[in-house]
Amino acid sequence: MGLIVQKFGGTSVGSIEKILNVAECVRGEKERGNQVVVVVSAMGKSTDQLVNMAKEISEQPNKREMDMLLSTGEQVTIALLSMALNQKGLEAVSFTGWQAGIMTEPVHGNARISKINTDAVQNQLDAGKVVIVAGFQGVTEDGEITTLGRGGSDTTAVALAAALNADKCDIYTDVTGVFTTDPRYVKNARKLLSVSYDEMLELANLGAGVLHPRAVEFAKNYNVRLEVRSSMEKVEGTVIEGEATMEQNLVVRGVAFEDGITRVTVLGLRNSLTSLSTIFTTLAKNHINVDIIIQSTTDEGAANLSFSIHTDDWIPTLNVLENNKEILAYDQLDAENKLAKVSIVGSGMISNPGVAAKMFEVLANSNIPVKMVSTSEIKVSAVVEEKNMLKAVEALHEAFELGQN
Amino acid sequence: MGLIVQKFGGTSVGSIEKILNVAECVRGEKERGNQVVVVVSAMGKSTDQLVNMAKEISEQPNKREMDMLLSTGEQVTIALLSMALNQKGLEAVSFTGWQAGIMTEPVHGNARISKINTDAVQNQLDAGKVVIVAGFQGVTEDGEITTLGRGGSDTTAVALAAALNADKCDIYTDVTGVFTTDPRYVKNARKLLSVSYDEMLELANLGAGVLHPRAVEFAKNYNVRLEVRSSMEKVEGTVIEGEATMEQNLVVRGVAFEDGITRVTVLGLRNSLTSLSTIFTTLAKNHINVDIIIQSTTDEGAANLSFSIHTDDWIPTLNVLENNKEILAYDQLDAENKLAKVSIVGSGMISNPGVAAKMFEVLANSNIPVKMVSTSEIKVSAVVEEKNMLKAVEALHEAFELGQN
Repeated sequence: MGLIVQKFGGTSVGSIEKILNVAECVRGEKERGNQVVVVVSAMGKSTDQLVNMAKEISEQPNKREMDMLLSTGEQVTIALLSMALNQKGLEAVSFTGWQAGIMTEPVHGNARISKINTDAVQNQLDAGKVVIVAGFQGVTEDGEITTLGRGGSDTTAVALAAALNADKCDIYTDVTGVFTTDPRYVKNARKLLSVSYDEMLELANLGAGVLHPRAVEFAKNYNVRLEVRSSMEKVEGTVIEGEATMEQNLVVRGVAFEDGITRVTVLGLRNSLTSLSTIFTTLAKNHINVDIIIQSTTDEGAANLSFSIHTDDWIPTLNVLENNKEILAYDQLDAENKLAKVSIVGSGMISNPGVAAKMFEVLANSNIPVKMVSTSEIKVSAVVEEKNMLKAVEALHEAFELGQN
Repeated sequence: MGLIVQKFGGTSVGSIEKILNVAECVRGEKERGNQVVVVVSAMGKSTDQLVNMAKEISEQPNKREMDMLLSTGEQVTIALLSMALNQKGLEAVSFTGWQAGIMTEPVHGNARISKINTDAVQNQLDAGKVVIVAGFQGVTEDGEITTLGRGGSDTTAVALAAALNADKCDIYTDVTGVFTTDPRYVKNARKLLSVSYDEMLELANLGAGVLHPRAVEFAKNYNVRLEVRSSMEKVEGTVIEGEATMEQNLVVRGVAFEDGITRVTVLGLRNSLTSLSTIFTTLAKNHINVDIIIQSTTDEGAANLSFSIHTDDWIPTLNVLENNKEILAYDQLDAENKLAKVSIVGSGMISNPGVAAKMFEVLANSNIPVKMVSTSEIKVSAVVEEKNMLKAVEALHEAFELGQN
């Protein structure tokens, strides 16, 4: 008998019908003789509805009260799922974050889990019950309700799996696993049977939205065996673990891509020593996320700086830079919109210095100009024009032979 | 500086606009220099929506999970109201039932409050904050979420007022107070400035829906000064306290009425000694509430029994009686529908034996046949035909001079 943690996201519990489907999925695992803990998100659009109500009251709603409000979303789902299981004759009991002993730091909106008191959950498991836990939420030592921010339910599931020493944590979603690239756009995309934590981390960060990077990091730290699988189709998913056991020989494992990128260029920075940190500190204070950063120095000793942002952030970025022109001490601004980022990912790259070179060769052969580049040990990202994005993805997917088993 | 508990029901918080209006009401009390605790219900129809989702899953949803589900309704309201107050620059903090220390017996769906640990609420009051508490919900010693059933939010407010030793508990509603009779039907209806607990209890039980009888009982036991007032109009409401100080000389204080009554008659009960208790025990087991009961014995020693029920309960009652005909040992059944109950209420009646006589005289003069009668120390109820209900109410309201100050 094993202990399995299952996590179902908002789409998988988006209607009563889907909740009944999830109940069947839970029953299947239970009938295979396993103990089951289920972590669920709020139903489909319900979080958005709650946020909209809050926004009607205040542009910047009190954060403590926002957590109070949003945490009701998952509480609705756990109650309904537990009713569905009990109706099917399966003993189940639901727990809010505080009831499940999910302790967090005293931060609202984006709290990190500090500890899990598993007694209540373990007692119910020992009594033979399915335990359903509200994802995305926790409680501080002082009894304040907190939420975990984006990817919170994934994190709850992984943290519970770690704390309960579960055999496996299954992340159910609306795709059947992790693919070499987005199958909606590239027909040769192939499902990966296994990826390593680090590869998943890069893929997640690069927009392969099936799993939140934070949850992957948690899984890596506590060595929790994850599987991403479909809540609708009964097929094998993708296992995420220490090493990608099945396909180690492959250097590149996937191609990720993302459009809506803007490159901002700041020309003639007169104080290159301090202005770099000043610019990024100022942008961070204004909640603008910067991705790739490139700096070059001109002959006159002034510096030019380019960085990439989401196009959504372009207007706020412009405002921040213009309002602080004196302090930042630069000559002029420039921006290029309609860009995209294409990345290749694979832990095999660490020992294969030629991979980046091959990527640029493939892009050059396809007549795709590269605007910016960024590399890590297990990925290479190139910023290209949006119109070239899919052409680049297909060429790379083909060149690195990702469509073949 | 006083301590005021304010309670706002579902209609008063039914939209964002109404919640902002409630926030103004709270601010008014705060600006008068008082400490304020606010108890709120779920927004308008939100409880119904939650119940409907549960019913889609199960005819009889698991009661524990029903409490888990329904308690989210008030949690949404407390968060939104607290946001609204903070937005207006008034420091506020919201508490769920468990956070506010509302302890209940371990019963789901209809729990009674066993104790209130006021520390958390008192600390926030001492820090100068408005404290907003979710009505209708509590928590058991074991950390299980419970709900208090019908009238639960009124009860939460009164119980908190008692535990905090508040100076007053204001029940805000969509009417301006307690009236001598329903002002929607009788244009001479007059608002009462004060009524006693016992009078309010009878009025509440007789369908004057502004306040739940359970909350009135609680207020009476703990001597909490209640005021029923309007959340929309700034006018004096009705004070409910030990003695009706202002209008003690009036014998009859109000006329209550209710239609949709059915009289059931059971003829030829052969075992009059035991059958009475058997019938009502059987009905109670089937959740059928019986109001007025009349028994008479015939010359042959068999008994005839009449009782009144809500017409909604007629089919279930018929089923219960017919299915148990052998055990109950009766000859035949009879029923009369389209009846109504008209009651006069006033604590002055205790010392005025002529009041009931006057009531029957008034009804007789109006040519209204009386079908059944029931009396208590402070009320007399008569069952009449539905078509005569309002005529009876108006005649009684007139005869007892209730329209005059």
